[in-house]
Order: sequence, then structure tokens, then C-alpha cells
Amino acid sequence: MLIAYQGVPGAYSEMAARRLFPGCKTLPCETFDEVFAAVEKRKADRGVVPVENSLGGSIHHNYDLLARHALTVTRETYLRVEHALMALPGTRLQNLRAVISHPQALAQCSDFFARHPQTKAVAWYDTAGAARSLAENASLPHDAVRVGALASEAAAEIYGLKILKKKVQNRTDNYTRFLCVARAAEKLPLEGPFKTSLTLVPARNRAGVLHAITGVFAARGIDLTKIESRPDPDNAFDYRFYLDAVGSAKASPLKDALRDLKPLTRELRVLGSYAKAALPRKGRS
Amino acid sequence: MLIAYQGVPGAYSEMAARRLFPGCKTLPCETFDEVFAAVEKRKADRGVVPVENSLGGSIHHNYDLLARHALTVTRETYLRVEHALMALPGTRLQNLRAVISHPQALAQCSDFFARHPQTKAVAWYDTAGAARSLAENASLPHDAVRVGALASEAAAEIYGLKILKKKVQNRTDNYTRFLCVARAAEKLPLEGPFKTSLTLVPARNRAGVLHAITGVFAARGIDLTKIESRPDPDNAFDYRFYLDAVGSAKASPLKDALRDLKPLTRELRVLGSYAKAALPRKGRS
Repeated sequence: MLIAYQGVPGAYSEMAARRLFPGCKTLPCETFDEVFAAVEKRKADRGVVPVENSLGGSIHHNYDLLARHALTVTRETYLRVEHALMALPGTRLQNLRAVISHPQALAQCSDFFARHPQTKAVAWYDTAGAARSLAENASLPHDAVRVGALASEAAAEIYGLKILKKKVQNRTDNYTRFLCVARAAEKLPLEGPFKTSLTLVPARNRAGVLHAITGVFAARGIDLTKIESRPDPDNAFDYRFYLDAVGSAKASPLKDALRDLKPLTRELRVLGSYAKAALPRKGRS
Repeated sequence: MLIAYQGVPGAYSEMAARRLFPGCKTLPCETFDEVFAAVEKRKADRGVVPVENSLGGSIHHNYDLLARHALTVTRETYLRVEHALMALPGTRLQNLRAVISHPQALAQCSDFFARHPQTKAVAWYDTAGAARSLAENASLPHDAVRVGALASEAAAEIYGLKILKKKVQNRTDNYTRFLCVARAAEKLPLEGPFKTSLTLVPARNRAGVLHAITGVFAARGIDLTKIESRPDPDNAFDYRFYLDAVGSAKASPLKDALRDLKPLTRELRVLGSYAKAALPRKGRS
């Protein structure tokens, strides 16, 4: 099983791929677009992409790619994002002059930089890429022995770096949700709970149509675990909705609800049904 | 009028502040938290922060700050995000070896880098900050005459850089929504339409409560222009909702709808009412 992801080895997306497919091989891609293309063109069996972060929100670009490509969502998982501070063996924390990482990771560790004013936060393309640049001594802002990187603990192992400090991030409630995309649906487990992701554009945008749509689910006792509207900049009165409903699209009651939604929508697409993953709790990963 | 924003002069947030308050003075802050603190502690009259981007989604961190601080939303505006490529006077496009900017801006201009493979995209903390670093020749990846920056056209003017190319971004439908926060409500214009932002936690999370909530608005003919659910990692069955409804919280029918929402919610907070801004259309900014 070969799983495409965006980033370099040690990326959080790669960790999500390994959690979903233990023992899988992984295919690093430069962009999310390449992940979808790799699956579509059979260069990879599956792709794993982040779709929302608890602090940052939904990653609309990946929802756009889901809408644009004829792939199916087959799995989901949540990953707690925990940054480790790593450096070349022999480097001591008090000698660090710069720490490189993705700007979001640097921002998530701002308390560390406030406590260590002699250490500058330097933006890098991505987290695991920063660990790799440090290991390869590639265009670093200082001598390599004065530079650290913030990335996953897995990245430290891959690039032979020593972890100086674990869980450097300010907040523990930072997690990312990943979806797995495939060319065809996977066989669902025998037992649920399941979840189904949908995207739809209401038939007409007037007060009441959203209520009619939520009513289709409520009437059949179906829980919605996500609802999100997104304005369409080309049509100021059009909204696209992303919904996650509990259940499988192939079985009642969700199957019936989808049929009832048809007359209420201009566009309705089932992105896929999959086993419902548990949300991570505080203090667990 | 002094308006706090995150970033340095020439930042998109500062442009949003100037669009909302023509002729205002602006106070640059390092973080969004500092923007809220500046308003709360009367160091600034207002703050202007981005809350959602058409490609990236809602910026949950700023919604968290809205929930945590006792400030009121008093205005909104949309800004089309257009990146200009700028450099020191005398630099020619074909001599550029590196272009510095925020990673999101670099990603939004990936077509340019694909067409100019000799030019490397180098991550920087923020867009206007990249223009300032270039003008100040501060820790650049190459000689300054071989470096460009991607930032707003305003940043080029502020830092004395020459624009080599306008609108370098791949897509034109990239816009950001900004909210203005104040210590107290502003007087609304005489004529609407108005909008009101709310956050709520349903009274109990069961199938049907979302339908009951949308029903409160539908029953009174009130349009919802945004609805977004966000899971609470501490309480896997709790969701927080962000809603924008058309109308003022001080006037019927929205005032009555808010009263009807009370028994359906464990938490209900009006973040503010303000004049509804138009969504930008393609080809306009």
C-alpha cells in the first residue's frame, strides 16, 4: 500500500497516513494538488490530506480539491499536533540562536521564544523540511550548531537530530483532522459508527432553505457532526455547504435523507462514507 | 482614531483598517492577542483582525479571541488579496534568485515560480515584513539586488521598492474578511442591511437541536450568511457554532429570534451588529 501525502518524511501528514495504514509505504508530494493527482493517476493507492485544524479552521483548498477530483473519502483520523525542539547532536539549548520551522508551528510555540529571547524564530517552508534542512546544513540562518528545528518527534529520528525538548507548543488542544482519498470506496467495517461527508449548494438561497436541509436530517434522527457554509465569491447569494452526517450513505436512514435532499439542492455530492474516528482528548494524542 | 492591527505597515490588515476608517492612524502589533489587548487597555480605539479567508477558511484563533475578550464587533469588510512582486530600484526580474514572502503568499503565487525556475521562493514571517526586510537588507538569502518580495502594492510604496509585476497570484478569487472590534458598540448607520455575529453552544447535543436553532431564524424570515460548527476537543459531544444573521440584534425580528434561542443554548453571545459589507466579485478589489 503506497500512500501519497504533502511534505517530506516526518511530516504530520505522513504520521496520519501511518496511523490510518500501519506499515504502509509513503509517497512525499510537494503540493496537495500533487497528492490528488498521484492517486488519480495510480501513482499511489491512497492520499492523506488535512482538512481542518482546531485552531486554524477548515482548509478550504483541500475541500476544493475534493470537489474537483473524482476521488472518494474512505477514512478519517485526528492527530494531536505536538512540536519537539531538535538540533544536531551536541547542541545545547542555551546555545541556540535560531529555531527554524513553519510559521504556524513557530507561532504555536511563541511562549518558548518569549522565555528564550536570545533564540530567534526563523520561518521555514514546513516543519519536517526544517528538520531536514538542519540535518543537511542547507542555507541555515546561523552555524548549524546554533540552530534548532521545531517538528514532529518522528522527524528527529528520521534526520538523526537530538530532541532537546518535547511538546514545546503553548496549547495542548491543537489537533488536525485528516481524510484519506481513494479512487474507489473501501469496504466499511462490519460495525459502525460511520460518518459521511457531503458538499451541497442549496437549490435557492433564501431564508429557510438551510432550515429545510437540517430538517431532512433531524426528521430521521441523523446527527450532523459538521456544518459549514462558504460564500461563493462569483455569486454573492450562493453558498456551498460542507456537512458530515453520522451514518453510511449506502444504508438507511442516511440513504433516505440523501434522496430527500435532492429537491432542496442545486448540487449534491457524497464525498464518501467511512468509519467515524474518535476526537482526541486533552492530554492524549 | 487609532486602529490596532497585526503586522507591519503595508500589511493587508492595515489596508483593511484604512478601508474601514479612511484617514485613520494605525498601530502595528506583533500578534493578534496584542491587537485585542491594545483595544481593551485603551492603547488603541479599535482593532481590525482577519476572521476568514476564501481559500484557507475561518481563522479560529481570532474567533477564540472574540469569545475571550469583552469587545464588540462594530464593522466588517472584505479585501481581495493581491500580491505584487517588488524589488530594490534597478533590480530586473530575470536577475532574481530568491523571492521572500509569507509561505501562504508564496503558495498562492506558485505558477510564477513554476515559470521562473531560477527564482527560489523563500519563506518569511509576513508579506509586508518581507518587503521591509528587503528594503533594510536584513538577513536576506542573497545579495539584495537578487532578491524580490511578494506583498501588497502599498508595501512597495512604504518601503521604497519598485513593483516588477502586479497581481502575481494564481487565482483571483482570494479574499479575506476582516472584523473591527471596539470596547463599545458604534452607532449603526440609519439604513441597513445589517449583520450580527453570534457564537453559541447548543443546550444539549442531540440530533435535532441544530434544526431547532435554524428554525428560530427561518420562522422569522432571517437569512443566515454564515454557519459553522466547531467541535470542542474537551467535550467530544459539544459543538460551538458561529453564525452570522442578517439584521441588527437591537431590532425585530432578530431581537426576538435571539430571545427564542436562549432556551436552546447553553451559551449564547452576540459578538456585535454592524453594516453588512458587499462580497468582492471577481475582477474587482
